[in-house]
Amino acid sequence: LYEFGVVRAAQCSTKEQPLVRNLNELPQSNYGREGLSHMTIAGALSHGMKEVEVWLQTIAPGSKTPIHRHSCEEVFVVLKGRGTLFLASSSNKCPGKPQLFPISSNTTFSIPVNDPHQVVNTDGNEDLQMLVVISRPPVKVFIYDDWFMPHIAARLKYPYYWDAECFDSPKDEL
Amino acid sequence: LYEFGVVRAAQCSTKEQPLVRNLNELPQSNYGREGLSHMTIAGALSHGMKEVEVWLQTIAPGSKTPIHRHSCEEVFVVLKGRGTLFLASSSNKCPGKPQLFPISSNTTFSIPVNDPHQVVNTDGNEDLQMLVVISRPPVKVFIYDDWFMPHIAARLKYPYYWDAECFDSPKDEL
Ligand SMILES: [Zn+2]
Ligand SMILES: [Zn+2]
Repeated sequence: LYEFGVVRAAQCSTKEQPLVRNLNELPQSNYGREGLSHMTIAGALSHGMKEVEVWLQTIAPGSKTPIHRHSCEEVFVVLKGRGTLFLASSSNKCPGKPQLFPISSNTTFSIPVNDPHQVVNTDGNEDLQMLVVISRPPVKVFIYDDWFMPHIAARLKYPYYWDAECFDSPKDEL
Repeated sequence: LYEFGVVRAAQCSTKEQPLVRNLNELPQSNYGREGLSHMTIAGALSHGMKEVEVWLQTIAPGSKTPIHRHSCEEVFVVLKGRGTLFLASSSNKCPGKPQLFPISSNTTFSIPVNDPHQVVNTDGNEDLQMLVVISRPPVKVFIYDDWFMPHIAARLKYPYYWDAECFDSPKDEL
């Protein structure tokens, strides 16, 4: 049990982490989602951030995020590849048919708070790599099955995929 | 007067800006600071952000940020080049001799809230390029003349260099 706590601490606590971290040495995983590679560059649960969180995400060709919404702000900076942002509105009963926005390397976009959205790698060959910034971590995400599911039926997934691992881990009590 | 308002609006309002923006087309300037190139990728005054702000900053060889502190969170992701982070503490009367941390492409670091710091491009040849994320924009910065200036003597610079341009510009009243 003691060792278990220590092992978790390496990824899930702010202790024992150097101030300057190399991205090549940070944990990266798909967290159970096919076609995703997620790295928390600076996170609430992993690094003690309270107001912002920064992720590096890589989406394989043909893969996508869930259709989802959150009340925090979110900024994307696309580093590599190309894809499509699907964006709907929070003002009707359900998202409805989304608007499509092409995204590609060297573009940036922010998701309007609470608007349902999805990012898809629509390229046949190249990975889509993005830096993602969110406010008020850890993120509270509501997931839709499709664009015509009512907003109130969307399911809260909290903690989110990459936060689940650290959520119940022992804090730095040692 | 009408045209003046419209011209300013292009950089300082959330209107007339596409959702997906190309970094190559965003305004970039030294804002009066030698050896700096700053781009607000997503900002409070320029894009209506309320909780986070994202910048792209390039520091020329030998150039540096001021010694400064702020109560917001700040995350750096170094994209290119190498340099040194100078970091002191907020707990004594003045910052005192700072700790030095080498930084380079593919590293990340967060500045502890209120700790005085400075980023210097210590490389002789290459630009130091970083993505910078701050919380609670627009940033309120306290500037020190040197590491031995008392914290209470540091001068508030608000609005900060790149925010000054938009700070008093007409809002979207048309
Ligand atoms: Zn999102
Ligand atoms: Zn700073």
